[in-house]
Formats: sequence, C-alpha cells, structure tokens
Amino acid sequence: MKISARNVFPGTVTAIKAGSVNSEVSIEIAKGIVITAVVTKASAKHLKLKKGAKAFAVIKASSVLLATE
Amino acid sequence: MKISARNVFPGTVTAIKAGSVNSEVSIEIAKGIVITAVVTKASAKHLKLKKGAKAFAVIKASSVLLATE
Amino acid sequence: MKISARNVFPGTVTAIKAGSVNSEVSIEIAKGIVITAVVTKASAKHLKLKKGAKAFAVIKASSVLLATE
Amino acid sequence: MKISARNVFPGTVTAIKAGSVNSEVSIEIAKGIVITAVVTKASAKHLKLKKGAKAFAVIKASSVLLATE
Amino acid sequence: MKISARNVFPGTVTAIKAGSVNSEVSIEIAKGIVITAVVTKASAKHLKLKKGAKAFAVIKASSVLLATE
Amino acid sequence: MKISARNVFPGTVTAIKAGSVNSEVSIEIAKGIVITAVVTKASAKHLKLKKGAKAFAVIKASSVLLATE
Repeated sequence: MKISARNVFPGTVTAIKAGSVNSEVSIEIAKGIVITAVVTKASAKHLKLKKGAKAFAVIKASSVLLATE
Repeated sequence: MKISARNVFPGTVTAIKAGSVNSEVSIEIAKGIVITAVVTKASAKHLKLKKGAKAFAVIKASSVLLATE
Repeated sequence: MKISARNVFPGTVTAIKAGSVNSEVSIEIAKGIVITAVVTKASAKHLKLKKGAKAFAVIKASSVLLATE
Repeated sequence: MKISARNVFPGTVTAIKAGSVNSEVSIEIAKGIVITAVVTKASAKHLKLKKGAKAFAVIKASSVLLATE
Repeated sequence: MKISARNVFPGTVTAIKAGSVNSEVSIEIAKGIVITAVVTKASAKHLKLKKGAKAFAVIKASSVLLATE
Repeated sequence: MKISARNVFPGTVTAIKAGSVNSEVSIEIAKGIVITAVVTKASAKHLKLKKGAKAFAVIKASSVLLATE
C-alpha cells in the first residue's frame, strides 16, 4: 500500500502506554529521534504493536507545524 | 515558549514551494530524514523560512498514524 | 502495509482538481457516497491518481467530528 | 447550521465505548460502511449519542489521506 | 445541527484570500480576537462567506495545542 | 519560539480533567471565551498546567472548520 502522507518513517517501538480508549506509542526512527503517536487502543492491538516491534510513523504534511527560535 | 506537542524536531530547511495560500516546506531533522509540512504562505513568510534556515518541525501526537508491513 | 487509521475505505477516483501546492481529490466509496480529500499535489502525482483509478480514503478516528440534528 | 467540512455523512450509531476523557463512537453510514470517531466523552454526552441514534460523521477534507495498493 | 466540536465561536468574517484549491478566511470572534481558517475554496463558496458575513469557527479539542512561556 | 500556527491565544487555565493517556484542558482567552484542548497527560504535566496558570492555545489554520447558520 502506498500512502499520500509525505512523511513515512520506519522505526522501532520503544514504549506503549495503554489507556481506556487510546494508546500512546513511541517509535525511534533514528538514533535519538523518537516520534510519539496517540492511536486508538484497538488500532495498537490490531497492528500487534509491542516494544521492539518494527513500525512506521505516518504524518500528513498538513498536520506539521513549523517554528523558529 | 514550551509547547504541548510531543514531537519537536530541530532541523534545516531544505526546500520551500509557495502556492497562493499554502507553502510546502521541507526540513531535514537528521541525515536523510526530511519532514515535509504544509503551512500558510503568510506563516512561512512570518517565520522568514528559506533554504538553509534553522527551524523546528512540531507534530501533535494525535496527528501521527502508525503502520506495519 | 497495515495502518492504524480506523477508517480505510476502498473506492474510485471521481474528480481531481490540482492547485499549486495541494490537490483536491474525490473518491466514491459506495453508490452516492463520495469522500473529498486535500493532499499535496506531489502526493497525488506520486500515487498516480486520476479519474477512474482505484484508491483508498484513510481517516484517523480522532479527525472525525460528530453532529446531530 | 451549514458546515465547511466537505464530508458530512448521515448514519446510525452502532457502538460507543467511553474512556475517561474520550469516547470512541462508530456510525454506519451505508450498509457495511462504518466510520469510527474519537470525540471527548463530554461531547458524546452533550449530543446524547447512544446505540441506534441518528448522527452525522463530519470530516474536513484536509484530514483525509489517500492510498493505493 | 449540534456538533461534537468543543470549540464553536460565532464571529464576523474580516478577510478572505482565495487560492486555487483552498481559501484562507479570518473571523473576528471578539474584539481583537481573530481566528484564521484554511478551508477549500468550494466550501467558502458554498457557505457564501464574504467580508462582514456572520460565521462560526469550529475547532475539535484534539486539534488544539497548548504552550507556556 | 515563533510558531507557524496562525492562531495563538494567551489565556488562563480554568479546568483540567486527566484521563489515563490524555488530559482535557480549558483555557479562557477572553471574558466568556473558553477554548478546550485535549493533549497527552504527559504534555499537561510537562507544561505544569494547573487551574489559574497562564497558557496559550495554539491552533493551525487548517484545523479550523467554518459554519454558518
């Protein structure tokens, strides 16, 4: 499957914290660069995400903000 | 300013493409890792973004999707 | 690729309107049910989207609002 | 009320799962087509959503991703 | 129509800037408080938005970031 | 830090409700105008948000919907 999102980064799950509806999942996409996602708990289960698993972080360009110092 | 977004990545602007309302801006946050953002043209101008400038990509955790192969 | 988005609907592209940065793409996912997306022009090109092509509309659950009459 | 969102689909609530802050709500908008939303628990209560109730799924075009096989 | 978005602010359109796909619309919701939206050009036309028109800014709680100094 | 978001409103936290993964935070940005955000619980803690604290609501223009009566 090819996706329209401009930002697709392969990585490894480093942490999962499950709530009642959502789960917070962290993925290391490069040494020291960790992306944190909040997805539904059902999705995290469906993707069989667990610490050490390979996964992609997917981010639509219109969801990215920019900042300067 | 500290921001609630869980994902804040410093980098360098590598490309800007301006449309009439929006601009597409690419930021390299690590060797080979480029994040693309679409922000309003007015924002890109306000932040004085240009090729080579330092900037941060800011992404709220709830905007990140996950995928597996 | 399996994605965390809870809403993934297969359909057929019925219209594309390209701007300078973004493109507006409509996909019919069932008789009379059309989903309209705005993605970057580069993404639409990358996915080779054109009228009549098969494609999926992908929507994260946290992006959906609800309403009642 | 008319809304700018390009995607407004009437349907029937088929499931609600309440967490502490958010609720996950599923709406069937056509036979076999179910859209899942995550909204605040307070919103779900305010709209009096419950299984069998009529409701609309509302999605801004810029929140929709596209994919191809 | 009642909507799940927690943030619904009535105001007056103070500016519209149309691009090829999107339009940027500013709404003053209180003296000196202006909210800027980017919606599709088709939506802005459909809602008959123009300078001086009454309109609501609608924002889902999960789309709001927070910051401190 | 300057941010690309077009909507940055200073205010005072009026309520916080913590869940297991997310927290719901309300900020009064003008007399009678309250913006509600859902951010991760970790973010709310990181920003030391509490009733009475000063904070900014930050909203990207592409996340704002418009409506008319």
